[in-house]
Amino acid sequence: MESKRLEGTNLYGVIMAGGRGTRFWPASRHSRPKQLLSILGDRSLLRHTVERLLPFLPAERILVVTGEDIAPAVRAQVPEIPPENLLLEPEGRNTAPCIGWAALHLRQHAGDPVMAVLPSDHFIQDPLEFGRLLEAAAAWAQQGNHLVTIAIRPTYPETGYGYIRMGTCSGRIRDVPIYRVDGFWEKPDSATAESFLRAGTFFWNSGIFVWKASTILNALARQLPELLEGLRRMQAALQKGETQEGAREFRNLAPISIDYGVIEKAEAVYAIQGEFGWNDVGSWTAVYTQSPKDASGNTCRGDLLAVEASGCLVDAPPDKLVALVGVKDLVVVDAGDALLICRLDRSQQVREVVERLKKDRDGQCL
Amino acid sequence: MESKRLEGTNLYGVIMAGGRGTRFWPASRHSRPKQLLSILGDRSLLRHTVERLLPFLPAERILVVTGEDIAPAVRAQVPEIPPENLLLEPEGRNTAPCIGWAALHLRQHAGDPVMAVLPSDHFIQDPLEFGRLLEAAAAWAQQGNHLVTIAIRPTYPETGYGYIRMGTCSGRIRDVPIYRVDGFWEKPDSATAESFLRAGTFFWNSGIFVWKASTILNALARQLPELLEGLRRMQAALQKGETQEGAREFRNLAPISIDYGVIEKAEAVYAIQGEFGWNDVGSWTAVYTQSPKDASGNTCRGDLLAVEASGCLVDAPPDKLVALVGVKDLVVVDAGDALLICRLDRSQQVREVVERLKKDRDGQCL
Repeated sequence: MESKRLEGTNLYGVIMAGGRGTRFWPASRHSRPKQLLSILGDRSLLRHTVERLLPFLPAERILVVTGEDIAPAVRAQVPEIPPENLLLEPEGRNTAPCIGWAALHLRQHAGDPVMAVLPSDHFIQDPLEFGRLLEAAAAWAQQGNHLVTIAIRPTYPETGYGYIRMGTCSGRIRDVPIYRVDGFWEKPDSATAESFLRAGTFFWNSGIFVWKASTILNALARQLPELLEGLRRMQAALQKGETQEGAREFRNLAPISIDYGVIEKAEAVYAIQGEFGWNDVGSWTAVYTQSPKDASGNTCRGDLLAVEASGCLVDAPPDKLVALVGVKDLVVVDAGDALLICRLDRSQQVREVVERLKKDRDGQCL
Repeated sequence: MESKRLEGTNLYGVIMAGGRGTRFWPASRHSRPKQLLSILGDRSLLRHTVERLLPFLPAERILVVTGEDIAPAVRAQVPEIPPENLLLEPEGRNTAPCIGWAALHLRQHAGDPVMAVLPSDHFIQDPLEFGRLLEAAAAWAQQGNHLVTIAIRPTYPETGYGYIRMGTCSGRIRDVPIYRVDGFWEKPDSATAESFLRAGTFFWNSGIFVWKASTILNALARQLPELLEGLRRMQAALQKGETQEGAREFRNLAPISIDYGVIEKAEAVYAIQGEFGWNDVGSWTAVYTQSPKDASGNTCRGDLLAVEASGCLVDAPPDKLVALVGVKDLVVVDAGDALLICRLDRSQQVREVVERLKKDRDGQCL
């Protein structure tokens, strides 16, 4: 793949790969979270995320923030990323500490570049269009203290996402219109989500952000000064080689999201409309929707024998025969030590299984 | 368990354990057929069959006819049966050759005893009542050239069984009434089965038979003379130590059932009404019906975590967690290399899976 570098912008990619999603149990585990799984296609979502960036960014300009304990698995999946570009959290503290650390790291080592903050566990159908919009967002972020977010036009009244109201158009850059953000709404109820969809001006918050390192650090200084101070103490400790002290400082940070802690309270937030087939792959149902299906509507990773079975998603080891007889609309996931069989429209309830394993079974199979 | 030997009768038990039932796939395999599985309780159906006899018969008077290839597994399950009491078929040839061989064997080694022919893969709830009726059947068989069968009062219009019409009562023995059999009907259609049930005089053919060795040999000589001649040649060869020649003779026998080949054409057939909670355990649905269930109607061998799941049968290794979410009325069988998920009311279609494995997949997982 030839690298068509983003011209005129000093851009870095910051991939957030510390999540521990529980909705893909039993395929996902604490030590093998969603972003490391090949649940769509033959590569992991993290690998897909990196490969989307490589045509535009050299590997040296990609940071990955992830958990210390899963670092070996992460390294194995993205071997081209230099080791010093992996920021290893001793524990997850949500997105604000993660992004703040990456920004401090960039200020120290790379001047004041633009940083594109990217979840590692989303699916994007059209990477070329994604690159085009990322380029525009970076150019806009470069021009001022702009916080830029990528907003997705909703296709149905999802209640699990945050929404952004698009305001007036502030202009165009590289032929891409830039909007002021008029407000944020966390997960709405069903009626509100319906009205958002009808209004046409409400978009999904994709969790993809673009800004200069100094811009987000200034915003953190205003909104979350204690968190920023903690991060600075951590950085100072790490620089002196005091890794335990650094880890202690990080563990003391309040776990808070960048949306709630900073973006929703900031003044100059801009949005670009991202139309590149975005999906946050939030459940087995989403995987089913995104996957190619056979004539009976079954999709299978593994060896399936279906007798009057339809609408099923099967994920099993390649050497295991899965026979379905007379069933429909099921999720079947065989992970060796654990087997899930779930109605396709109930895959959100997989979380309940994980909760019960924590609560009643001392963390069995987590 | 104290042996309360059947008095006054020279009785032998002949257990037919050569079947290769396919309806319990993937738990059952060609080399691990249904009778060797612990699908009900903690012992195999074969083991249950032997233990039902042991209070009445010493192990030396129990013969087991089974396949040569599964002989080690059979021996391991019934170690008290003397090795010379295992008759090993080189290939399955249905019940007439199996029973004929056992009868010739008994004539040669035990005079002319009464033999109770018993399938090895049925469930019987009340072994004491079973023993009482077996004793009566044996006494009646001892008194003459009587072919005696145990008939089961039908509880629903099953189309998969053979039916017997009960005729006049020929008398009582040990307080048990003995009926003449008025006719046989192979698997009826649904309307016929309904009318059989309403009539009240039609009973299920359990496949349990009692007769003297000489009685069945005489019947074979009349109805299947070629088969009997083949068996005699096999026996002569085996006696001379010509095991290959003996096997060749057995393989040349026509595969035919004792019902179709002999009983249905015989004159003096008698029946005893068996009311001892009989079930032929013909499918996973039957196992579900016979098994104790929890408050949600689930029955599990293994480690089940159910979230709003009901009416399911789960059979999985003890170290595998099976999580069911939002599903109902499913059969879930994890056999390591193969997994079956089947609607509870479709478990007869498991045969189709086996057929397709034979036809399209070169016998994979059979």
